[in-house]
Amino acid sequence: MSNSPRMIDVRQSVLSKNDRLAQELRARFDAAGVRVLNLLSSPGAGKTRLLEETLRRLGERYRVAALVGDLATDNDARRLARSGAAVRQIETGGLCHLEADLVTSHLEGWDLAGFDFLFIENVGNLVCPTGYDLGEHGRVVLMAVTEGEDKPLKYPGTFQWANLVLISKLDMAEAAEFDAAAAHESIESVHPDVTIIATSARTGAGMGEWMAWLEALRAD
Amino acid sequence: MSNSPRMIDVRQSVLSKNDRLAQELRARFDAAGVRVLNLLSSPGAGKTRLLEETLRRLGERYRVAALVGDLATDNDARRLARSGAAVRQIETGGLCHLEADLVTSHLEGWDLAGFDFLFIENVGNLVCPTGYDLGEHGRVVLMAVTEGEDKPLKYPGTFQWANLVLISKLDMAEAAEFDAAAAHESIESVHPDVTIIATSARTGAGMGEWMAWLEALRAD
Repeated sequence: MSNSPRMIDVRQSVLSKNDRLAQELRARFDAAGVRVLNLLSSPGAGKTRLLEETLRRLGERYRVAALVGDLATDNDARRLARSGAAVRQIETGGLCHLEADLVTSHLEGWDLAGFDFLFIENVGNLVCPTGYDLGEHGRVVLMAVTEGEDKPLKYPGTFQWANLVLISKLDMAEAAEFDAAAAHESIESVHPDVTIIATSARTGAGMGEWMAWLEALRAD
Repeated sequence: MSNSPRMIDVRQSVLSKNDRLAQELRARFDAAGVRVLNLLSSPGAGKTRLLEETLRRLGERYRVAALVGDLATDNDARRLARSGAAVRQIETGGLCHLEADLVTSHLEGWDLAGFDFLFIENVGNLVCPTGYDLGEHGRVVLMAVTEGEDKPLKYPGTFQWANLVLISKLDMAEAAEFDAAAAHESIESVHPDVTIIATSARTGAGMGEWMAWLEALRAD
């Protein structure tokens, strides 16, 4: 996208339309009593793998659903549906983020009051999704130990708006020579006091703490 | 970005302006005899680490330079400058890709005839940079073994336009349970016959083959 004034005008009008739709969504979610999380990360940070494990664990006590965004393919929806949760794929066809109207149209026919949690897995991208409110109650940003500790400094917008940062793939920390202190420092320099949980969907590390965070959000 | 007609109009006008500037850049590069590579990947796929090792190796026989794009910070330029190569940072200030005019303005004062190779490290993003020609002679897409073998299926646009796919972080293949056959199959399903080289900047695996590919491009 260019920085030309005309482009910015159009972008602002798109964003304000999105904000209006997002407010409507949030009102629907609140009325239905479902807690909604927007998951953001770069491609390959492990959102789907984490979500798979999250749906499985939460599914033992709660009614859970997921919307999964990708430019192309319904691989992730098929993978997540194995957890038994209600899952729908949103194929954006080239769009690098989800927008509130895509969420609205993909909720059609679902009884939201039948869910306790709805996860929206955004398109893998550390830039585009940031400006688009989807009516969520919490924005969760994943950062894999394999990505380099400085990602929050390079993509500050995404991390600044996070309600929670999940460090993912902790099982690969040693292979990646991950420096946990440096990662925390990077995150905190762009977003002081944000909650950070280090997780591995593979080993289960940190998953209990993540479940507790979700349950606290529900109790809010 | 919305799919509304007005947005598409603006986008097409931005793209055609970019294409014109990219053609001018390519003419300048050709006249100066410098070979230019545009490096794309998701955040954290190891572009900078690979480039660091590439500049070091190529620098023994060639005059090399790099432009490094990021939304924020000049971390990468400082890191790459240690190789002794000429390096400049392009901070995009929120823009999720490089554009030809940013490349043009950051070349100012450089004598292009003084370089054999110029590498342009794009912003870490598997969507936005795809439509923007930077006047390069080759487009190199990195895909880390830690990202999941299906990334080409999910981000087909970026892989379809690659002249070379570099699989990176091969040293972590075992920890990531990387399935090389599945990765090749994904890449080839969106871009048949593209050259694929598996590399590790850390161990040096595949670096010789990558250097040979670059030298062949130069001889073209």
